[in-house]
Amino acid sequence: MRAVILRILRENGDCFLSGEDISRQLAVSRTAIWKHIQALKRDGYVIEAHSRRGYRFCGGPDLLLPEEIEPQLTTAILGRKIHYLPAVDSTNNEAKRLAVDGCSEGLIVVAEEQSGGRGRLARGWFSPFGKGLWFSLVLRPSFSPQEAYKCTLMTAVAVNKAIKKVTSIDCRIKWPNDILYEGKKLVGILTEMSAEMDAINYVVIGVGVNVNIAGDEFPLELRETVTSLAMLSLGRIDRLELLVAVLAEIEDSYQKTLQYGFKPILEEWRAASATLGCIVDVSGGGRQFSGLAVDIADDGALLVQTDTGLERILAGDVSVRARQGEE
Amino acid sequence: MRAVILRILRENGDCFLSGEDISRQLAVSRTAIWKHIQALKRDGYVIEAHSRRGYRFCGGPDLLLPEEIEPQLTTAILGRKIHYLPAVDSTNNEAKRLAVDGCSEGLIVVAEEQSGGRGRLARGWFSPFGKGLWFSLVLRPSFSPQEAYKCTLMTAVAVNKAIKKVTSIDCRIKWPNDILYEGKKLVGILTEMSAEMDAINYVVIGVGVNVNIAGDEFPLELRETVTSLAMLSLGRIDRLELLVAVLAEIEDSYQKTLQYGFKPILEEWRAASATLGCIVDVSGGGRQFSGLAVDIADDGALLVQTDTGLERILAGDVSVRARQGEE
Repeated sequence: MRAVILRILRENGDCFLSGEDISRQLAVSRTAIWKHIQALKRDGYVIEAHSRRGYRFCGGPDLLLPEEIEPQLTTAILGRKIHYLPAVDSTNNEAKRLAVDGCSEGLIVVAEEQSGGRGRLARGWFSPFGKGLWFSLVLRPSFSPQEAYKCTLMTAVAVNKAIKKVTSIDCRIKWPNDILYEGKKLVGILTEMSAEMDAINYVVIGVGVNVNIAGDEFPLELRETVTSLAMLSLGRIDRLELLVAVLAEIEDSYQKTLQYGFKPILEEWRAASATLGCIVDVSGGGRQFSGLAVDIADDGALLVQTDTGLERILAGDVSVRARQGEE
Repeated sequence: MRAVILRILRENGDCFLSGEDISRQLAVSRTAIWKHIQALKRDGYVIEAHSRRGYRFCGGPDLLLPEEIEPQLTTAILGRKIHYLPAVDSTNNEAKRLAVDGCSEGLIVVAEEQSGGRGRLARGWFSPFGKGLWFSLVLRPSFSPQEAYKCTLMTAVAVNKAIKKVTSIDCRIKWPNDILYEGKKLVGILTEMSAEMDAINYVVIGVGVNVNIAGDEFPLELRETVTSLAMLSLGRIDRLELLVAVLAEIEDSYQKTLQYGFKPILEEWRAASATLGCIVDVSGGGRQFSGLAVDIADDGALLVQTDTGLERILAGDVSVRARQGEE
């Protein structure tokens, strides 16, 4: 009922609509309408009320409420089910719980705040209330588990494109799953899966985008290494618009991957890479070495040319030192 | 206390031990000893009681109780924690729940009966009470998810070796994870994992061995395609001895894989294969074709030579038609 009242008021634009009109359209009492409008106001909707002229919609709250997202969606699968939480430990954890319970493909978990936001290798992700996109989505691809890396790379490509479209900011992708602006972290992607040896049960893709976090809102220890869209564009970014664009791009990448294979996405990944052509320091699995990142292989491995040969990196930490020739 | 009393009685062999002796050793009352012995009897232990001479151990129940398993274990990691359940939906499900809660590597879940035993591709696995080994183990290997197939293959090799040692029955491994005797299914292995893109959280390996199931105890629709160790050896097999041997072999294969790489295990797999050298029918992923299974690749893929080229099989159903030349 609240969502319907909201829709009617919105469709009415700048004009007032009398409580009587609304109550007639919806066949409920004027008192009921009044109560729903009070509830909407409590949620942060700005609705002007005039004793004779009625109600007028003046603006929504800055919350990623399902009733805000749904009318804007352009996707067929992603976000068609939305699990919204003001606060959660981690949207990935919640999405995994729902996936184990059998939720359908495309479900998204959206939170305003994460108390235990996670990045790769169990690192934390700063996720303050209402300041970013903190969401996870559930896919059930027909890939084998060996191909699950495609989900990470296609999401990085898609989020990067959506940011460009909405904000005109041109970012780069650091292997395998961060989006950076001038070396500072803007987006993290954490893909987790549950699988048998030859079939994926589900993949959960968590996306964290620093949207409207001001520089001095970041914890001190992060300030040198992170940034946000608001800092880069010198203004507030509409999170809803960005979320809808991100979902559209991910769905597009996913459909392309399923229909045409992964080569086009790999090409886009290469073109946006912050890693290829750079000297990188690699650590993990008890080894540490440096080399020139020359390409990404068809299986998602980063190919690093060292003095002793070509190394295939599938795991571990890769830090970019300098672009070849600029060192 | 029960386990201690049991150990004392067992160590005493065929001799009687008075309740007074036991109560003195353990510093508890004779009545307490008597009560514990009644409880042991209720669990199926055969303990002879004589009013003057005391108690004598005559045999254990045919149950895979932790206090039975633990004294026999030769492993350092596997089975050092045992989660025992008379009945469960599926030992893999229970192991996954424990793994999510952070259980340590090597934990095993052992059940006498599974109400929803599962094989690959969500197929059922017949698991009647006390008649088989139905267990799962939790590993946390340092492999990447791409290497998780190693767990399946090394387990197949290990279970096959343990069966040979305990029963002298020489079985074959069907790609990727069944153990057969003359084409009939004896063992199923179901490996499941939870992973990030470049790190495994946990692997759960479920093993089902048809041990003491008589031919006419199998459901009618299975009788043509399955067998049991008791049917093959014409006698009852000691499940405890087999379980302990299986755990020892899996641990051995696992340690070898971690220390020396996977080549030796692949060699053993090849030598025991029921698939290589045979014409196979492959189906899955919307495709269906036949060919000669020529080898297993380093990444666990089955290599099948068809009229049009060499196919790499990572998923799907493979059924063995006939050995080359015998068709």
